Amino acid sequence: MDRRSFLKTSAVAGVASAGLAAPAFAQGNVKLTMVTSWGRGLAGVFDAAQICADNINNMSGGSLTIDVKAAGELVGAFEVFDAVASGQADMYHAADYYFVGQHPAFAFFTGVPFGMTATELNNWYYHGNGRMYHDTLGEIFGLKSFLAGNTGTQAGGWFRKEINGPEDFDGLKFRMPGLGGQALGLLGASVQNIPGAEVYQALASGALDGTEWIGPWADEKAGFQEITKFYYTAGFHEPAAGLTLATNLEVFNNLSKEHQSMIEIAAGHANVWNLSQYLFHNGAALNRLQSEGVKVLQFPDSVWDAFGSASMQLYEQYSEDDLFAEVLADYQAVMSDSSSWLTNSTGAYRAQRDRVMG
Amino acid sequence: MDRRSFLKTSAVAGVASAGLAAPAFAQGNVKLTMVTSWGRGLAGVFDAAQICADNINNMSGGSLTIDVKAAGELVGAFEVFDAVASGQADMYHAADYYFVGQHPAFAFFTGVPFGMTATELNNWYYHGNGRMYHDTLGEIFGLKSFLAGNTGTQAGGWFRKEINGPEDFDGLKFRMPGLGGQALGLLGASVQNIPGAEVYQALASGALDGTEWIGPWADEKAGFQEITKFYYTAGFHEPAAGLTLATNLEVFNNLSKEHQSMIEIAAGHANVWNLSQYLFHNGAALNRLQSEGVKVLQFPDSVWDAFGSASMQLYEQYSEDDLFAEVLADYQAVMSDSSSWLTNSTGAYRAQRDRVMG
Repeated sequence: MDRRSFLKTSAVAGVASAGLAAPAFAQGNVKLTMVTSWGRGLAGVFDAAQICADNINNMSGGSLTIDVKAAGELVGAFEVFDAVASGQADMYHAADYYFVGQHPAFAFFTGVPFGMTATELNNWYYHGNGRMYHDTLGEIFGLKSFLAGNTGTQAGGWFRKEINGPEDFDGLKFRMPGLGGQALGLLGASVQNIPGAEVYQALASGALDGTEWIGPWADEKAGFQEITKFYYTAGFHEPAAGLTLATNLEVFNNLSKEHQSMIEIAAGHANVWNLSQYLFHNGAALNRLQSEGVKVLQFPDSVWDAFGSASMQLYEQYSEDDLFAEVLADYQAVMSDSSSWLTNSTGAYRAQRDRVMG
Repeated sequence: MDRRSFLKTSAVAGVASAGLAAPAFAQGNVKLTMVTSWGRGLAGVFDAAQICADNINNMSGGSLTIDVKAAGELVGAFEVFDAVASGQADMYHAADYYFVGQHPAFAFFTGVPFGMTATELNNWYYHGNGRMYHDTLGEIFGLKSFLAGNTGTQAGGWFRKEINGPEDFDGLKFRMPGLGGQALGLLGASVQNIPGAEVYQALASGALDGTEWIGPWADEKAGFQEITKFYYTAGFHEPAAGLTLATNLEVFNNLSKEHQSMIEIAAGHANVWNLSQYLFHNGAALNRLQSEGVKVLQFPDSVWDAFGSASMQLYEQYSEDDLFAEVLADYQAVMSDSSSWLTNSTGAYRAQRDRVMG
């Protein structure tokens, strides 16, 4: 049963309000197509999409199955939003900051410059107003969205030479999506938003001077260390990188309450499972990269200051949109409170653990 | 249908291998009893148990319902392990370090002195060998366990006066469970393991000189600030405090694959939902406590050093148990790798965010 016939059938048979044991439901399994922004098997991000599908399939016993498509198999990496909003596909798994062109507030559900880490994002999402604002945006575009993965704080990226000051970004051809990329643009960089699967070739050919991607584990698999050895591990642009599982709103509303709940809970599980996947692998990968001659570097304060000024300029500009301004104010208030606690608890603890245990 | 008749029926009708839509299943819903270590409605911990039950009920459309019992309603707070292992109840939601008397390695699934933070614990659990070791312990005692909540790094606790050196713990009547409490015992403290619901009264009456509980949000609700104002926000004893949803292994094995998957995925969702619940509320609660005159303090280095020595002594002692020693070595190797990455990424980022954004 494809989506169109499902919608038609459910309108007639009232599947939306039927329980799992209802005859109409038992007689017809539901199959949805999930398009993604990820190359098939791309470490971490594709895994997060796949585990959502697998768990929904398992929990439903096959009454709801999800067919996961890699980027390019049905639509391109950045076409998934329009495909799902228009009903061409049923769900997407992507990073919502790819869609700041549709609305700049989508950036908050991945990561924004000088914004929340993954832990902080989850606080705001599940217990502050984050989910509500995700719904607000979803209603505008016809989507029902849930966070369903996170890469953790993303690395600052790979460069052909050391970065000594903000002037080194002038004219630099660099890959960085979202508001972070726009901030680099204000520093004079020529910013390019290239799907993950194409970044290695662009860097190797010289079409790019440098790139950020995710972190040591994914970056090592992408092979950037074969091209350059200058690796900045902390970046300003994506302190978290939340991933979203979004379902066409009409499709979602026509699912049974049980299937709706399975999608939501599978997404929540994927959120913690995927974040910990990156963090588990990043440490060992960083060790390997260093043993292959990669230099682990941090940007100097002057560069962080320039990142800060450019980011503030962007926030001011985007705050002309009322919804963006409202989300930003709510987000920053939560970030301020939780940051203070994290500094006084986990931060103080980790400093003592490092000191006492060596 | 209670658990015993369910087991009997499923043996006859083969429910374990039946799909959701199978008639045998549709005709008989499964109802399980979950006992917990928590007072009814106790902020955070009880919520984590309840949201697991709610989501399982929602996803199953009532074909699997979980009846949540507070501490004392069926068995006492610390009797839940034996109740589930023996089959008196079907599931428990608790902190597994309450059960170090059954096996000391249970401590790793909550938190151990100078051990993993919540983020680090999840890395090891979902992508290292954590889940495997949880299963190993489960097979010894007849349990199938999943992490299903986390309070985050726990506060060092409430004291009647400032702590200036390790000698201040000598003779101190203090509440602290798990290996942390045993380490305090080595410093001369008189350590008492009291269920959460009874701690306020013990502190008010002078039966306790001080106590740790969870963190600002839960501690404020418990009302400790009414008794004393000296609050140490970072502790050595529970850098994470994972919560476990454990099902009697025979009961679990007799559930359908769909219901088994729902329990696992609901637990994973509760893990991120509950951790972020604590972190969301802790910041604002700490601000309120400070405005009521609570002093936010950190232990001096000499006290952390004493915590360290006592903790190492305990690890040496418990490592006489082969399984404990094996889990410890595996756990510490993962902690070392992921700690290095977190320092170079999220740690470096947060320091710059604080510096640049003020």
